Amino acid sequence: MSGAIDFYFDFASPFGYIMSEHIDAVAAKYGRVVVWRAMLLAPAFKVSGTVPVLGMPVKGEYFKIDFARSARYHGVAFRLPSRFPLMTTLAARAFRWVNDRDPAKAKQLAHAIFRAYFVDDVNIAEEDKLLGIAAAQGLDRHEIGDAIHDIDVKNRLRALVDAAIARGVFGSPMVYVDGEPFWGTDRLPHVEKWLATGGF
Amino acid sequence: MSGAIDFYFDFASPFGYIMSEHIDAVAAKYGRVVVWRAMLLAPAFKVSGTVPVLGMPVKGEYFKIDFARSARYHGVAFRLPSRFPLMTTLAARAFRWVNDRDPAKAKQLAHAIFRAYFVDDVNIAEEDKLLGIAAAQGLDRHEIGDAIHDIDVKNRLRALVDAAIARGVFGSPMVYVDGEPFWGTDRLPHVEKWLATGGF
Repeated sequence: MSGAIDFYFDFASPFGYIMSEHIDAVAAKYGRVVVWRAMLLAPAFKVSGTVPVLGMPVKGEYFKIDFARSARYHGVAFRLPSRFPLMTTLAARAFRWVNDRDPAKAKQLAHAIFRAYFVDDVNIAEEDKLLGIAAAQGLDRHEIGDAIHDIDVKNRLRALVDAAIARGVFGSPMVYVDGEPFWGTDRLPHVEKWLATGGF
Repeated sequence: MSGAIDFYFDFASPFGYIMSEHIDAVAAKYGRVVVWRAMLLAPAFKVSGTVPVLGMPVKGEYFKIDFARSARYHGVAFRLPSRFPLMTTLAARAFRWVNDRDPAKAKQLAHAIFRAYFVDDVNIAEEDKLLGIAAAQGLDRHEIGDAIHDIDVKNRLRALVDAAIARGVFGSPMVYVDGEPFWGTDRLPHVEKWLATGGF
């Protein structure tokens, strides 16, 4: 029972962001590593018939409260971005490209992208802003700029999204431990109990 | 900060059931009482555009796993009923009628209805089964049988559902503490933190 944990997320997901601040530490307590997989929710939403929650009457208003309160509960800085949600295709491609070369560096980039979006209200859909975030993490701005328009990188991301959907990923975050799926930051205690007990 | 906690639920809601097994004990730790409000989700779903989750592709399969795992996590017996979901109008009317007379007895009835449905796979939509559950709790079978078809009881329930929707209830369970809404059994730790800290 010591396989890697898979962590699927979309960079526009508040709960994906909150999970990203905690999942590695929880996994490390139980000697597990986490493989991060930046994906795109839009095609997964289409498969399951899910609609973005803030667009829903009543429920959308609730989640504006819940996003911020959940962040406070988990001790994570949070501000609802002025553009929400937004396209995260470029961000996911940048992550994919870096992750293929250096997963630790890719996690560092992912933290920076999430925090730029959910703390500093940076429009991470804008290429220039995204490249600025990457450069601030010591990545080569021009190299990333080329990568996010490269056909191979596009195909690598598409393949990841297709595989995620085939596996049953329908939301963000989704975490798989020993093949068991957990959806949502609120399932982090379940993930931890699973890790501590070997399944329950 | 000592007002009553409002607990809204539908008798066909697995997470409403899990919450019902814990909310009074959590509230009591902080000197709070809980007012239970059996409602009907169908009209609330219509307002927010929500669809029953088990009918959704992919997401429905996940929740079959998650319902049972969440019950195990919370130490509550659970079996997915063979008819799920089902109409809970009669059960909610029975609860409403008893609750108007004896809230403590009504909670006892609610526990019995929830457990009959989610542990013993009893079809609580059937009047005869419902009256059997009530009778087993020491309630007068004929009195309850009359009450669930009484126009005043129907109106009392309809008024409760309308008021819940007007307040913003869109799912089950929903708990209000000091006016703050919390949706889902997974928000029970947030409820407890709120009670412990006076809001966060």
